[in-house]
Amino acid sequence: MTTPLRIGIAGLGTVGLGVIRMLRDNADLVTSRAGRQIDVVAVSARDAQKNRGVDLSGVSWVTDARDMTERADISAIVEVIGGEGGISLDLAHKSLASGKHLITANKAMLAHHGTSLARLAEHHNVSVLCEAAVAGGIPIIKAFREGLAGNHIRALYGILNGTCNYILTEMRLSDRSFKDVLAEAQTKGYAESDPSFDIDGIDTGHKLCLLSSMAFGVMPQFSHMPITGISHLTPSDIQYAGELGYRIKLLGMAKCHDGKVWQKVMPCLVPSSSTLGNVEGVYNAVFYETDFAGQGMMSGRGAGADPTASAIVSDIIDLAQGKTRPLFGVSVDRLASASMIKPQEISSRFYMHLRVKDQAGVIAEISSILKDHHISIESMIQRGRNPDQAVSVVMITHETNESDMASAYAKMARLSFMASPPTQLMIKDIS
Amino acid sequence: MTTPLRIGIAGLGTVGLGVIRMLRDNADLVTSRAGRQIDVVAVSARDAQKNRGVDLSGVSWVTDARDMTERADISAIVEVIGGEGGISLDLAHKSLASGKHLITANKAMLAHHGTSLARLAEHHNVSVLCEAAVAGGIPIIKAFREGLAGNHIRALYGILNGTCNYILTEMRLSDRSFKDVLAEAQTKGYAESDPSFDIDGIDTGHKLCLLSSMAFGVMPQFSHMPITGISHLTPSDIQYAGELGYRIKLLGMAKCHDGKVWQKVMPCLVPSSSTLGNVEGVYNAVFYETDFAGQGMMSGRGAGADPTASAIVSDIIDLAQGKTRPLFGVSVDRLASASMIKPQEISSRFYMHLRVKDQAGVIAEISSILKDHHISIESMIQRGRNPDQAVSVVMITHETNESDMASAYAKMARLSFMASPPTQLMIKDIS
Repeated sequence: MTTPLRIGIAGLGTVGLGVIRMLRDNADLVTSRAGRQIDVVAVSARDAQKNRGVDLSGVSWVTDARDMTERADISAIVEVIGGEGGISLDLAHKSLASGKHLITANKAMLAHHGTSLARLAEHHNVSVLCEAAVAGGIPIIKAFREGLAGNHIRALYGILNGTCNYILTEMRLSDRSFKDVLAEAQTKGYAESDPSFDIDGIDTGHKLCLLSSMAFGVMPQFSHMPITGISHLTPSDIQYAGELGYRIKLLGMAKCHDGKVWQKVMPCLVPSSSTLGNVEGVYNAVFYETDFAGQGMMSGRGAGADPTASAIVSDIIDLAQGKTRPLFGVSVDRLASASMIKPQEISSRFYMHLRVKDQAGVIAEISSILKDHHISIESMIQRGRNPDQAVSVVMITHETNESDMASAYAKMARLSFMASPPTQLMIKDIS
Repeated sequence: MTTPLRIGIAGLGTVGLGVIRMLRDNADLVTSRAGRQIDVVAVSARDAQKNRGVDLSGVSWVTDARDMTERADISAIVEVIGGEGGISLDLAHKSLASGKHLITANKAMLAHHGTSLARLAEHHNVSVLCEAAVAGGIPIIKAFREGLAGNHIRALYGILNGTCNYILTEMRLSDRSFKDVLAEAQTKGYAESDPSFDIDGIDTGHKLCLLSSMAFGVMPQFSHMPITGISHLTPSDIQYAGELGYRIKLLGMAKCHDGKVWQKVMPCLVPSSSTLGNVEGVYNAVFYETDFAGQGMMSGRGAGADPTASAIVSDIIDLAQGKTRPLFGVSVDRLASASMIKPQEISSRFYMHLRVKDQAGVIAEISSILKDHHISIESMIQRGRNPDQAVSVVMITHETNESDMASAYAKMARLSFMASPPTQLMIKDIS
């Protein structure tokens, strides 16, 4: 057997501890798969005194993770500190520049700086591994880069944030408001005390950016991604969707056509009877369309100490065997700098929920705006009367393009009888 | 760029041609992922004259695939002839013994001879690759051997045969008999003219054998696997299952506990609202439980020229990069020779459909047999009367063990008032 692979772990939160636990609990299996022993030789965390419930005797402590990059006995660093820039980015640069492989769960950093980090890694002949950065328990990056390597991936639709999926599932099951369920999720530890990264869709956007880059072989492009979160959704939206045979899921969506790319994060209606529609609670899933393998889906746990550790340990095993791939599947000089598909070229059916004052002429005015934008209505739900108070009008459109829909939405939102901003969601009839 | 990887393709049926088409249509992508060119230098098929719609000029023809193993310009052979033994097995032996890698879609051969082929490959320092052998379009073997490499996989439940899943789905949607739908599937090309390998569960058994071996790190053991197919199922079984909130799926199931293994192929009830229950038509899926990554599922196309080609091409790319793994995830000397979990140790809820003559004392006699075997009933459906004719009694049991259930079943099947053999299915409440 060859020499052990010696690693340093930067960050001893739940994920870092999870990695240490998995490497210990499953040491025989890991050694047998990796063909060599994995040794954690150093860890970094601010407080060396804190009892973390894991025996760390014999492991070096460093206060500043970056000091690990100077140690000759470490050949790979596991970065589980987090954050787009700051110490994580600095550590990443220093690791790669000093010829150490980098294993990271940091989607924010990779979405923003992935291309330059991949280039730096190539220059120093080391690898960046990031299976943990997207849907931790689901080996989706390996599937895209390796398992489906000969396919052109045409489209992907991902439930990529467990917090949002948990909230949407609970709102449906218990008919409670977004705010109530978020508070509960925070109590249960499924949502951060500052949940904005999750509920505003930013985290989904980071993951979508990475996944679509790997799927399509294009440079990651996060800055212009249109992102809508879930905080504006009401229990009635979820009920109406249900009546129409759908569930609401926050999707990270991307398509690639003729070398052009479309990316969007938005709550969508997916069929209640679809595999994706039945991915509930904290579970994540990615549905994809390819040219040869056809359609497929992978689902599983997206976050948490153990699933994330599982992804990191699989990266460690690949690294120990010298079986890594370029960060984005191909070398940086082969990544395309794709232009974006225009909203005029994307068509979809849409769900609209308008809360309007119950007065004469409302439907006529809405219909007129829709007609001006070539949008036709497939079905409409309007129940009961509530003179001069707000009532709900729910409409499903026929296929229309994003651009027309956006213009019509802007006009409708300004109508004097609109009681609150309309809700507009895409309908994705994927199986 | 290094030298091309030169391969021979043994068998020019739809899959062999699919591989050639994919390598050509997606040549740029494949070369970029593989880091080198892939050249098909030889093909074998009985009839060299037949027009297959693919330009094969410049490719050597051999009549006997085994002749390829003597060519110095070929370093890997793609075997897509099929069949447990015969020419396929001979070709596999000769390929490996002559130092050529083997890429195969042949689950029957690997289920029966996998261990000896893996040993031969190790001895000659070459690889056996078989992503195409199980659920072609789904990179499940890569997920088990690499993506989840650090996990102990505890259990797996697979819809592994598209023909059976198509038949069961159509029986449900159109309320037709097994025989009618099978005939239709044969017309559509979804079922073979001799469908027994599929509908009797043998094909599912071969795939389960391979998957569970890779998942648990144990020698493949096909010979004693209990296998039940789907030909005895009636539209009323499917309807009753639906009323109870379930769909019937032919599952290949395996568990590993304390180093002991359980394997079984049997139609099962899975919740209608589960992700697995919504895998319909020709689609395949594998649901799994692991210690760190938790539960997950992968679904997609299991068979057909293109999805199978996708799997073979991903193997070719891994091979071109020198990034292959041992056939069963670890070297043969590390594979455990696991003993089997006894039926007494496996507990489940069961669905029973008894067709009994409508006469006095029937329920009393059945109840007495169940009581003798410590089986209690959770719910029962019995509708209408039909004096002295057959009526259906459907029962769901509480958790009971396989052994008690089998004994009770044998006794019930012999009852004089039983109009036809009872149907007994496992209930798998997996999400």
